[in-house]
Order: sequence, then structure tokens, then C-alpha cells
Amino acid sequence: MIHDAGRPLLVGVDVGGTKVGVLVVDGWGQVRARVIMPTVLDGPDATLAGIAAAIRQALQAAGADLSAVAAVGMGVPGQVDPQTGVVRHAVNLRWQEMPAGPRLAALLGVPCFLANDVRLAAIGLQRHPNYALIRNLAYVSVGTGIAAGLILDGRLYSGAHNMAGEIGHLVLNPAGPPCVCGLRGCLETLAAGPAIAAGGRQAALADPTGLLGAADRVTTATVYAAAAAGDPAAQAILRHVGRYLARACQAIMMTYDVERIVFGGGVTTAGEAFLRPIQQALNAMRRRSALARTLLAPDLLQLVPAGYDAGPWGAITLAGQSLLTAAQTAVER
Amino acid sequence: MIHDAGRPLLVGVDVGGTKVGVLVVDGWGQVRARVIMPTVLDGPDATLAGIAAAIRQALQAAGADLSAVAAVGMGVPGQVDPQTGVVRHAVNLRWQEMPAGPRLAALLGVPCFLANDVRLAAIGLQRHPNYALIRNLAYVSVGTGIAAGLILDGRLYSGAHNMAGEIGHLVLNPAGPPCVCGLRGCLETLAAGPAIAAGGRQAALADPTGLLGAADRVTTATVYAAAAAGDPAAQAILRHVGRYLARACQAIMMTYDVERIVFGGGVTTAGEAFLRPIQQALNAMRRRSALARTLLAPDLLQLVPAGYDAGPWGAITLAGQSLLTAAQTAVER
Repeated sequence: MIHDAGRPLLVGVDVGGTKVGVLVVDGWGQVRARVIMPTVLDGPDATLAGIAAAIRQALQAAGADLSAVAAVGMGVPGQVDPQTGVVRHAVNLRWQEMPAGPRLAALLGVPCFLANDVRLAAIGLQRHPNYALIRNLAYVSVGTGIAAGLILDGRLYSGAHNMAGEIGHLVLNPAGPPCVCGLRGCLETLAAGPAIAAGGRQAALADPTGLLGAADRVTTATVYAAAAAGDPAAQAILRHVGRYLARACQAIMMTYDVERIVFGGGVTTAGEAFLRPIQQALNAMRRRSALARTLLAPDLLQLVPAGYDAGPWGAITLAGQSLLTAAQTAVER
Repeated sequence: MIHDAGRPLLVGVDVGGTKVGVLVVDGWGQVRARVIMPTVLDGPDATLAGIAAAIRQALQAAGADLSAVAAVGMGVPGQVDPQTGVVRHAVNLRWQEMPAGPRLAALLGVPCFLANDVRLAAIGLQRHPNYALIRNLAYVSVGTGIAAGLILDGRLYSGAHNMAGEIGHLVLNPAGPPCVCGLRGCLETLAAGPAIAAGGRQAALADPTGLLGAADRVTTATVYAAAAAGDPAAQAILRHVGRYLARACQAIMMTYDVERIVFGGGVTTAGEAFLRPIQQALNAMRRRSALARTLLAPDLLQLVPAGYDAGPWGAITLAGQSLLTAAQTAVER
């Protein structure tokens, strides 16, 4: 951790489509404040101003101000160029070629470093005692889309075009629904939040008296709630989703061979009800395959530890490491 | 490269199910001899003795003997523990829990280091000028099975259980043929050599007057030859195989995001006739998907450069690096 007596604080920000999470951490790695605010979605500039306001509010809660901040790290749900801080696309924030890094730095007067949110959550897991000694892990975010952040041999792996871990576009059923990417039957068309909600709406239309209720009000949460209350149609949807996510886990093992697959993201707020159908489908694989029994260990799948801010902690790591890199580059010059 | 005036040579061995390839390289990285011998398959011990004989013959061709050899590196088609040199399974060699490393070292009186052959071929590619500057590449072997060796961020990636890159067991069609792993429709049941030959036999039975000839004599090579001569059934088989291998390439990009996918192994001796159906299937994906156009660049797929001994060169690298590691460990003690 960078320690500068004049600027002893780091700020980690995780920007989502609905919430902005901010952590303020001091030079001893202690949390000084934690704030969660709704994401402002009144246009690209308003979104950025809202993020700046959330950071100021978190600093106020920490009894500090921007003059005490060494750097801000920020995770963004989209394609980010970590070198320039330009966000190429962040669909949920309606950002396109948005120079969010430099503009936030100008708003705050503090260096701001950006990266993809899923990658930062993977890095954030490395700071949690459960994962500090795990050299190979995949953090899998299941929300509006599906993507993985990868720690391989102890380090973040991003790929040649910053596209490693785009497992939402693994084609699991070439005759499946069309995907935004142009192909058909990609994992995220079959198992992400919108697919679960769409399945629920269809079931609600087919049986308007069922536990799913009115079709136009069905969400992912409704489907999990109806399944928990015993609705067979909702349970069938989640079994189906579980089979696809189990196939994704098998593919993750056959490609990356990690020690842990840690799930996070909006859909996983269902908790054990999210994991159970995946585990059941993996059990069926384990019964049939010795290779699956070897690689798909019982403790392979986990949820992000309850209450742990993986994303903001990863952003804190990004801020600290980026300062260090900048300092080293300055010395080498 | 280790340079010891007394023992100036390194030996690199690539053991296949039909051939043993041996390279003898001196301290300046110059090839002093290159020998290819048939694999002896009269039992586990005879296979090992045959490898030792091939090494002795290569040294003789180099005008040297074992007293000039600093170390032997060897690639084995199976699961190898690189620490102990024990080969857990190498189906084609009929080796099971075979301590091939220590036993070869005892036969030759020289340190012997073993690793999986596909991984060593990936490392071997790094020594070729075409790939020396490529930081992320997948070497994909298509033969009796299918597996990938991965160079990620410039280094070999093996995974938590030495199983990274086992893409032959990506499930591409859950209703497909049963696989030795216990699951169904794994990539290698659909697109490896035996699948191509089986398709050819079926087509030959259906049309005994076709170019494929007598069903009981059909091999993978027969299918490529018949397709080249215009046989529609053989062409259909290769289109089918090409579609599955294209899906595998798409999965490789969505997981690893590499700069090059380099194909080698028995089936790829068909050369451009092997690549063409894969490229055609990738072109169909590119037409439909902007993401595919971005990631599946036209020069993504390549064959191992003609005549290049990727496997033995990887084994040379293994031998040199293992000596270096051993020397460093000795100094630290």
C-alpha cells in the first residue's frame, strides 16, 4: 500500500447499472468509510457527476476530503482501456468512447485509474483471506450478462485484446436464442438475468394463476421466489439455467483448470438457491465421468463471501498498484 | 542456454504413439543431429528402451556420446508429473504410473526432465521466429485426441491440476457420441482423427462404390484424399468437423483471447485441407457477428511451420530451464 503522509487515503469505486459502491481505505488498509448510492442514469455526464458526488460523500463520512486522497480506482461494467481510462462501451451506463478516467480526474483533482469491473472483483477476491492463497481462480459475474475475471498463476489475466473471460459468449446451443453478439445460443442468452426473467414471463403467461403472478411484473427475483415457494414452472426454469451454468463451469475447468469458481453479480443475490441447481447438474456429470469427479471438486463453486466488497477492494488494489507503477516509471525516466 | 564445456549438448525428445523424434542441440543452440525412429510398442519397458536407443543413435549421428550431454528433455503424450517424472497415464504408450523420468535417467546416466507433449510443443513454438514475439498463443494438437498447450502473458500456463487446455473435453453437443471421459459430445468425439475415420467408414458402408473405398480400410487420410478428389460424402464429413473445430476456436478466443491458434498433430498433416473447412465455418461466424469479426482475425489460425520440430524444441527448452532451476536451487541451499 502506498503511504504518503500528506495523502494517506485510497478510494475504490465499483460502478454498476443500479448502484455505485465506494470504499475509502487508509494507508494501513483500514476501511475509513463505505457508501452505496444509486447510479444516476440521466445521461453520460450526469452519471459521471453522480460518481464524483458519491466519492465526495464517502470522504465526508470518513471525516476527510479530496486533499487526503492519493488516487481513485474504479471498476466499470464494460470495455475499458486501462492505459487511457477511456470506456469504449458500457451499455448499462450509456457510455460510448467516454474518457471517464481523465474527466473524473479533472473533476476531483486526483489521479483516477479505471478497469473492467469483473476483473477488479477477481483482484478484490485476492485480498480476502479465503482466496489469498489461491493461485488460480475464476470470478464469474452473473447479472444482465455473464463474464469471468481470471487470476491465473497468481496474476490477473486479460488476454491479447482485453477480452479473456468473455464466457458469456461461449456457444452452448447453436440453435438457441439470438445473442447481441450476432451468434445464437451464447451462455448469456440461456442463463443470465434477462433469460431467467423471460422464462418466468413465458411461464406466467402459460399459467396466469401460478405463483409467478402477472407476466408483466416477473423479474429474476420473482422466479427465485416462486421456485422457493414450490412453483414447478419456476423450478423447471432454474433447473434449466443450472444445467447451462454447470456446463459453463465444466468448460471453465477444461480451459483454465482453476481451484475455485466464485460467483457474484445481481442474479447471485439469490444465494444458495442460485448455487443449488448448478451443483445438482454438476453432480449428474460427476456420476457419469471420472474426469468430472477429479476436476469438479465439491468445494469448487462458491459465492462471494457475504458482505464482502470484492469490486471496491479490487479498485483499491488498482489505485495502489497504478500509483506504484507511475512512481517507478518516473524514477526510470 | 546452459553452457558447460564438459557437457555441451542438450537432447530434446518428442515421444508419439508412432514416432520418436530426437534433436541434439549444442551450447550455441545449433542442431547437431535430428533423428526420427518408430515408437517401440512391445510393452512399457521396451518402449522406454526404444527411446534410449533413439537418443544414443542421435548422439552417434552428432559424433558424440552420452558423456557430452548435460540433460535430456522429453515430451510424453499423456498426464505427466513434471516434478517426479512419473507418467500417470499415456494411453498410446500403454504407460500407467510409469516412472519414466528416473528410469530413463538411470538408463542413460544423465538428468531427464519430462512434461506433457502438447505443452512442450507450445513452448517449442516460442523459439520459432514467427512466434517469438507472440505473448498469448494456443497450440492445438488434433490427433487421436484434442488438447491445447497455452502460452499466456509469455509463459506456459498449466492450471491448478496440470489440466488446463484439455479442450478435447469441451462439450459441444450434449446429445453427441459418448466420450472416454464419461460425458457425451466432447469436442474430441466429434472432430479428432477417430471421429473423422469413423465418419468415413460409415459413408463407405452407405456407398461402397464411392471414392472412400472399402469401409474397413478407411482412415483419416483416406477421408481427406477422397474429399480432395471430389467425393461429396467425404467433403460433408470435413465440413462437419470444420464447424466443430471453428466452435472450438471461438471458445478458445472467448476464454483465453490469444493472438494465434497454431494447429499441429497427426490430423493436421492434411495441411491447408485441414484448415480450409475451419476457416469457412469461421467466415460464417464473422458474417453474423461483430464480436467474431473483432476477435477471429484472418491470420488467427495457422499450422505449425512446415518442417519445424516444435515438440523436440520445447523439450530442449525444458532440459535447459530445468538444469538452470536445479543449479539455482543448489545455490540457494
